Amino acid sequence: MTPQQDPRPSPSLAELERGVPFADRHVGPRPDGLATMLGALGLSSLDELAHAALPDAIRDDEPVATSLPEPVSETDMLTELRGIAARNTLTVPMIGLGYSGTRTPSVIRRNVLENPAWYTAYTPYQPEISQGRLEALLAFQTTVSDLTGLPVAGASLLDEATAAAEAMTLLRRAGKSTSPRFVVDADTLPQTIEVLRTRAEPLGIELEVTDLSGGLPEGEMFGLLVSYPGASGRVADPSSLIADAHGRGALVAVAADLLALTLLTPPGELGADAAVGTTQRFGVPLGFGGPHAAYLSVGERHARQLPGRLVGMSRDADGNPALRLALQTREQHIRREKATSNICTAQVLLAVVAACYAVYHGPEGLAAIARRTHRMAAVLAAGLRSGGVEIVHDRFFDTVVARVPGRADAVVAAAHDAGIALRPISSDEVGISTSEITTTAHLRTVWSAFGVDVADVDALDAATADALPPELGRTSEYLTHPTFHDHRSETSLMRWLRRLADADLALDRTMIPLGSCTMKLNAAAEMEPITWPEFANLHPFAPEADTAGSREMISQLEGWLADLTGYHAVSLQPNAGSQGELAGLLAIAAYHRANGDTGRDVCLIPASAHGTNAASAVMAGLRVVVVGTDPRGNVDLDDLRAQISEHGERLAALMITYPSTHGVYEATVREVCGAVHDAGGQVYVDGANLNALVGVARPGAFGGDVSHLNLHKTFCIPHGGGGPGVGPVAVAEHLAPFLPGRTPVAEGGVGAVSAARYGSPGVLPISWAYVRMMGVEGMRRATLTAVAAANYVARRLGDHYPVLYSGVDGSVAHECILDLRRITKDTGVTIDDVAKRLTDYGLHAPTMSFPVAGTLMVEPTESEDIVEIDRFVDAMIGIKGEIDRVAAGEWPVEDNPLRGAPHTVACLVDKWDHPYPRELAAYPTDGTPGVHDRKVWPPVRRIDGAHGDRNLVCSCPPVEAYGG
Amino acid sequence: MTPQQDPRPSPSLAELERGVPFADRHVGPRPDGLATMLGALGLSSLDELAHAALPDAIRDDEPVATSLPEPVSETDMLTELRGIAARNTLTVPMIGLGYSGTRTPSVIRRNVLENPAWYTAYTPYQPEISQGRLEALLAFQTTVSDLTGLPVAGASLLDEATAAAEAMTLLRRAGKSTSPRFVVDADTLPQTIEVLRTRAEPLGIELEVTDLSGGLPEGEMFGLLVSYPGASGRVADPSSLIADAHGRGALVAVAADLLALTLLTPPGELGADAAVGTTQRFGVPLGFGGPHAAYLSVGERHARQLPGRLVGMSRDADGNPALRLALQTREQHIRREKATSNICTAQVLLAVVAACYAVYHGPEGLAAIARRTHRMAAVLAAGLRSGGVEIVHDRFFDTVVARVPGRADAVVAAAHDAGIALRPISSDEVGISTSEITTTAHLRTVWSAFGVDVADVDALDAATADALPPELGRTSEYLTHPTFHDHRSETSLMRWLRRLADADLALDRTMIPLGSCTMKLNAAAEMEPITWPEFANLHPFAPEADTAGSREMISQLEGWLADLTGYHAVSLQPNAGSQGELAGLLAIAAYHRANGDTGRDVCLIPASAHGTNAASAVMAGLRVVVVGTDPRGNVDLDDLRAQISEHGERLAALMITYPSTHGVYEATVREVCGAVHDAGGQVYVDGANLNALVGVARPGAFGGDVSHLNLHKTFCIPHGGGGPGVGPVAVAEHLAPFLPGRTPVAEGGVGAVSAARYGSPGVLPISWAYVRMMGVEGMRRATLTAVAAANYVARRLGDHYPVLYSGVDGSVAHECILDLRRITKDTGVTIDDVAKRLTDYGLHAPTMSFPVAGTLMVEPTESEDIVEIDRFVDAMIGIKGEIDRVAAGEWPVEDNPLRGAPHTVACLVDKWDHPYPRELAAYPTDGTPGVHDRKVWPPVRRIDGAHGDRNLVCSCPPVEAYGG
Repeated sequence: MTPQQDPRPSPSLAELERGVPFADRHVGPRPDGLATMLGALGLSSLDELAHAALPDAIRDDEPVATSLPEPVSETDMLTELRGIAARNTLTVPMIGLGYSGTRTPSVIRRNVLENPAWYTAYTPYQPEISQGRLEALLAFQTTVSDLTGLPVAGASLLDEATAAAEAMTLLRRAGKSTSPRFVVDADTLPQTIEVLRTRAEPLGIELEVTDLSGGLPEGEMFGLLVSYPGASGRVADPSSLIADAHGRGALVAVAADLLALTLLTPPGELGADAAVGTTQRFGVPLGFGGPHAAYLSVGERHARQLPGRLVGMSRDADGNPALRLALQTREQHIRREKATSNICTAQVLLAVVAACYAVYHGPEGLAAIARRTHRMAAVLAAGLRSGGVEIVHDRFFDTVVARVPGRADAVVAAAHDAGIALRPISSDEVGISTSEITTTAHLRTVWSAFGVDVADVDALDAATADALPPELGRTSEYLTHPTFHDHRSETSLMRWLRRLADADLALDRTMIPLGSCTMKLNAAAEMEPITWPEFANLHPFAPEADTAGSREMISQLEGWLADLTGYHAVSLQPNAGSQGELAGLLAIAAYHRANGDTGRDVCLIPASAHGTNAASAVMAGLRVVVVGTDPRGNVDLDDLRAQISEHGERLAALMITYPSTHGVYEATVREVCGAVHDAGGQVYVDGANLNALVGVARPGAFGGDVSHLNLHKTFCIPHGGGGPGVGPVAVAEHLAPFLPGRTPVAEGGVGAVSAARYGSPGVLPISWAYVRMMGVEGMRRATLTAVAAANYVARRLGDHYPVLYSGVDGSVAHECILDLRRITKDTGVTIDDVAKRLTDYGLHAPTMSFPVAGTLMVEPTESEDIVEIDRFVDAMIGIKGEIDRVAAGEWPVEDNPLRGAPHTVACLVDKWDHPYPRELAAYPTDGTPGVHDRKVWPPVRRIDGAHGDRNLVCSCPPVEAYGG
Repeated sequence: MTPQQDPRPSPSLAELERGVPFADRHVGPRPDGLATMLGALGLSSLDELAHAALPDAIRDDEPVATSLPEPVSETDMLTELRGIAARNTLTVPMIGLGYSGTRTPSVIRRNVLENPAWYTAYTPYQPEISQGRLEALLAFQTTVSDLTGLPVAGASLLDEATAAAEAMTLLRRAGKSTSPRFVVDADTLPQTIEVLRTRAEPLGIELEVTDLSGGLPEGEMFGLLVSYPGASGRVADPSSLIADAHGRGALVAVAADLLALTLLTPPGELGADAAVGTTQRFGVPLGFGGPHAAYLSVGERHARQLPGRLVGMSRDADGNPALRLALQTREQHIRREKATSNICTAQVLLAVVAACYAVYHGPEGLAAIARRTHRMAAVLAAGLRSGGVEIVHDRFFDTVVARVPGRADAVVAAAHDAGIALRPISSDEVGISTSEITTTAHLRTVWSAFGVDVADVDALDAATADALPPELGRTSEYLTHPTFHDHRSETSLMRWLRRLADADLALDRTMIPLGSCTMKLNAAAEMEPITWPEFANLHPFAPEADTAGSREMISQLEGWLADLTGYHAVSLQPNAGSQGELAGLLAIAAYHRANGDTGRDVCLIPASAHGTNAASAVMAGLRVVVVGTDPRGNVDLDDLRAQISEHGERLAALMITYPSTHGVYEATVREVCGAVHDAGGQVYVDGANLNALVGVARPGAFGGDVSHLNLHKTFCIPHGGGGPGVGPVAVAEHLAPFLPGRTPVAEGGVGAVSAARYGSPGVLPISWAYVRMMGVEGMRRATLTAVAAANYVARRLGDHYPVLYSGVDGSVAHECILDLRRITKDTGVTIDDVAKRLTDYGLHAPTMSFPVAGTLMVEPTESEDIVEIDRFVDAMIGIKGEIDRVAAGEWPVEDNPLRGAPHTVACLVDKWDHPYPRELAAYPTDGTPGVHDRKVWPPVRRIDGAHGDRNLVCSCPPVEAYGG
């Protein structure tokens, strides 16, 4: 048939069936907007941009990730993923080991976990527009500090195991002991012990895991970790161990179950210096192991040693109480190789869930849940005993170990057949853990699996005493603040959550142009599966056969990520970028050791690197040596060669970020990598900026031996207001044997870096869905669109603010740095003034003072359309106009719209005695409001951080503090 | 064992296992708050309140709804309901008949259907705090008017069938013909024809359903309904039929498929006077038949005849453009027995979804979806023909009728076995409808079911011409407004939805104390199941076996509702309260007829009744006779007896509301009912105020023969911003044979009142979940708490505003009326001023001028805790203080904080020349803002409704209108 005879109008059915690709929804600019952006750069297509911006040496002109399937629509993706999810088998988890069944109240699931106002928020570095989640985090901190009896709790850590590792190093630096020995209760969760081993060894800490039931082992130690209750469920009073350790100059951390602490004397009252644990059972779905929020609390004297984020009270410019991150100078990105931790993410979204759970239930509700949990265990044990089964421990909270010589496997199998997963400890012992979701029907099933018949559960209950040590009964109050009493009806909690959400500025209201943080769309279709029961309710130690669906999803995602980055293998275990870095560096170190290269301990890091790089290197036992950068911000090749030559056989690795933290595709990257390889070193390519590479270039193909990726940057896991992050590590073939968390750990291998085998699998469906819907072509388009947007911003703003670095052809990569140092010097207007003034425009500020102090780094991402990008650019130009008026002397530097920003309605309605008009303060665009504008009013004015640090308040303050 | 030997601490395991009942979350007041409220009334328990407030004659002292199971927790309810849902079998729906497969974009599902900011909003009667959904509804109206080519479209109707009935009566009253004849295209959806029959008969309309393929039947007619395309899929040009009808003095409505109109000449351009149809396929889940939004559009000359709600542009007090409901004097509650329709609900939530779908896809996207749908049908037909199957019509859009003599059942069965549901038309014909979700794989399956093999679909596609009539190709543009072009990326749409949501005040931010509207908690756990695929994706004409789960859920709910109301049977078919009223009255009329009582046509209605009662009675063919009320607002028994005596054998029914629309439990209700029964009449108890009865008294037990319930009031279906409603009708045993929609309709029975067999089953899981989690004891507690709250409000406000009516002991029921008429007369301050000033407090106004002009009716419901109730009461007292200052002459009546309300930030920031201070305008509580207050800023100031009615603009205006 010749074309003119074709009776069918175009397009073809096949084209129509493909429909609108998801990439068209994910990518912000429409064709005309993209053409405008490219036109401003003198370009006419994304491919042309690829040639102009990316060095030939690294660019893939065709996407090469051949393992990726053709992209599918939202609906088809969801159908496919439902099929995979259905291959998981949900049983009632009674396995314990730090992961408990819990009920997420629907009001919390819907209004937090399923609400973009919460999950698309960034880390609260701009506190004026983060008061909502800061208030929720303060409730989290209060929950932890009240329950543990230790007054200062951080805003969450990654999981219990890494929190224990952080506690270990905290005790070391906080104490006076010079001993390298750290003693760990053998009755500690096995995954905690494994992560402690991984973390102790490179730091020269001598870890001793020992049975403490007979008291402390002989000798010096700098610290002690006691579990309370133990992994076996046993509850024993740790006071004498603590006193003994203190007597030897050691500090003590207690790994404690937060729910148990509603009934038990808290660690703080028993003399502990620190407490660690998980808050998972406070309403956070199991998620096959994560994410959830771990906690770490300490006494006041150790507050400044606390790793990670800490929320504290301060006041704003009008003297009203306001929250912000306290003591930020502790943060690793500021301290670099002097850092004591590489933690930079928290688990904010999950900490918020746990805080909401505590707020919703209140102290009585939590105690009732704890009592239910405990009584179920006590009656369970009594029933087993009545059937002649030996119970190993008399004192326990929620976990019973039953001794059935030779029958353990049969009991576990019988229970599994009846829909309940128990913990097989050995051929003779079975662990059974109760939780909020345990019912008497479950007890009957378990008894039956043991061959025990209990005729009358009520009578057994009446005849059974508690199994908690009576002398450890909790007497102190907790959660007395009104926050934990005022929101017990769903209506009240829903409104509290809405009020908090309204105080914050997240991606659902504005672009968040954060350099290096890639705040792109977190599509609803990507988010939906994470709350499906099949993914949400899976226990990490469920039998293999029950987790087939999740493992299939994870395995596919690992393969796709390897292919996209040009590496051989990927491990999804690291549950934050920092953990991925550590894992990658540990792999390099282990590789050298395996080659007999035991002297290689130098890690070269460019001056421009993110501070976390240096902190991770130190944690991996490496020495950090700084390599200079040239005036364009690139690695100084001469200095690199000099350093390589100087360190010779000691060279372990070079860590570089690509594109660089300056937002530039360095043309010399292959030479840089080659020089390191020639000297026997390994190249670590930090994947923080992978959003400038996916589908266009592969670090594994241009010289990297290992990279970590940030799924929460490049692969659409939302920032959650400051976590969860996922930081998989990708390695070349020769490093694959050294990926973390292979079970069992091979001789010379790298142990676990996170508590759960797959880190935070609960959120991996997000990245899976993104890749599945985008396909490699879609991601290539996203990458180049992001690069186009950054160059468009640089081009439009370049006349107003100097753009600090660019590549050979004048292009930036996916972000650009606006240099305000000269402006600040000349006018006194600071980057803070600019950032806060952007709030008055309803915009979120760019990254401040990273990688260069006094600058702003802007990353528009591919998800913002040109209208929104222009809104930002126009605001920045408007701000420059205001700066010019300050410079011209029209307004004093201490009293102008910039220094006064952000402006609240309250301050506008109040008496006005500023030299600039109210209207301009309120509506900076042109001084006149529009009905349909994008104005968002901040709840507080500029916050005085220093005041808060001088007067540290890190838990819910008395109500009077809000009297204003 | 004696108690003192009991080693177990209390509470028992069984008590702990029960945990916190859901009722504790649903009910707002905590024990201390309830005690305070009861204490203010001189009472000490809810049971005491029950005795004090409810007449002995009706009160159940123990709940008697014995069929209800014991309540379960959120989690257990969800588990049970998942089990029921799993008994539905999802197939690919290719049945058609007005219900099409569609893809709800996840961004819309998550941010609208799953977001309380959207679904908990009330009808936008307070437009200043409803601009968001009004803007979305304007987009809905624009979508309909652009696509149908008729400039005025309402803000949605209940379903296509009832919309057609509304069109029928509109044509009758708008036209000049005196003929009672209405001609209906036989090729119209069968459910539409059935509802038209139900609605025509009582109104004396002679319905003639006839084949129009040969032209109009002879004779006069007042109106004509043509289907375009027809139910058979056939597409024919209706122009000559329209012209012919016009020539005979008739007006013409066209039932049109909105998606098809992207490709076909719209009805307006073909001369039609009105167009009706459904917008379900615009992204609204099938939901086993509903809810979805129907449309009705007309030419400008008929705008004022349009039933239901209509959104229009106007301006606010500062001259800025603003939206509100236009032409409200058309509404049935104002016109009472002169009403031309009883429609008072729209389907706002679903209309918003459809509007978002149009906004997200835009005209090109909709056309592409239409083309896909059409090409799938065209190629499907070509394939069948190639296999020798006869296709009945040559011209079609999405529906193909295949002729397979004697084989139809086998073909349908084969397709079903392969996962696709077709439409069995007869033993010889099969209907197959394509949609947005149809794939070529589906075509292959269908071909295979017919025994046809198509080797090369692409080749077949290339060889197949369109099957649309070429002369009917659409040439006019549509959806040219920027709204339909600016939100094509998910990011942009998400932000648009957030911006709209932020403009509105819903239950997630404040109590909405609306008398007679019962704005109680819509719990997240109740809402979750409605978006589960098993409920959302079920076609209403799916084979019985595939719908077992939904039917089980519906059957349980019907049983529970019957038991709770004391009736024998319930039909869930009416998809709004108004439809329930009509169904109930039709049942009464049919019952009388069946008894040979053909002369009974008088319906007694008290003067205080809701206007809808009268409108429904008229629609049911009854004559409305008003019964007086006494000074306490009760039915005047003497007048009732006089009327009964006057009308004698003509008495059909009495309609009363209980408690009365005055919010009073009338002590004489049994006497009232008895008097009617004695005279051979039936008693209709309007269930609008059932929230004051559930678990405490049953209308079916104290004299009612029939009631409708409002599941969107009493049983937690959210108001959705103005729909969906569900209005089941409950009847005594003797009326059970006359429930609507029994299939087939028995001789003398009542036909369908809604398009779908179960009305709006898609939202019934909400009510099911509520009853399942509350149990009858929980609902009794809810009822009495609501009564306590209303009496507490009446007691606290009684000193400031007269409370208009109360029962014998001085109690109100679940709502109270505040009488402002004297205040208005004395001071000039109106109820509008009070209502708008409440906005400045961040509160939603009560019901205005119902049931008595110049009053406010307050219903706090059981879900509000005392803190929120006191906030409202304190605001009202504060407002009274401001009224007193006006009265004292301190402020002029034309310029004070009440008349100026609501105040926007823009007006506060602007030049201020009012006699009251900015601070007071902004923060009425005490003139000072608190960081943590509940202030919500309205986007516009008071809206001038009359201006808009004079200058009617009911579709998206040109952008310049916003220049402001």
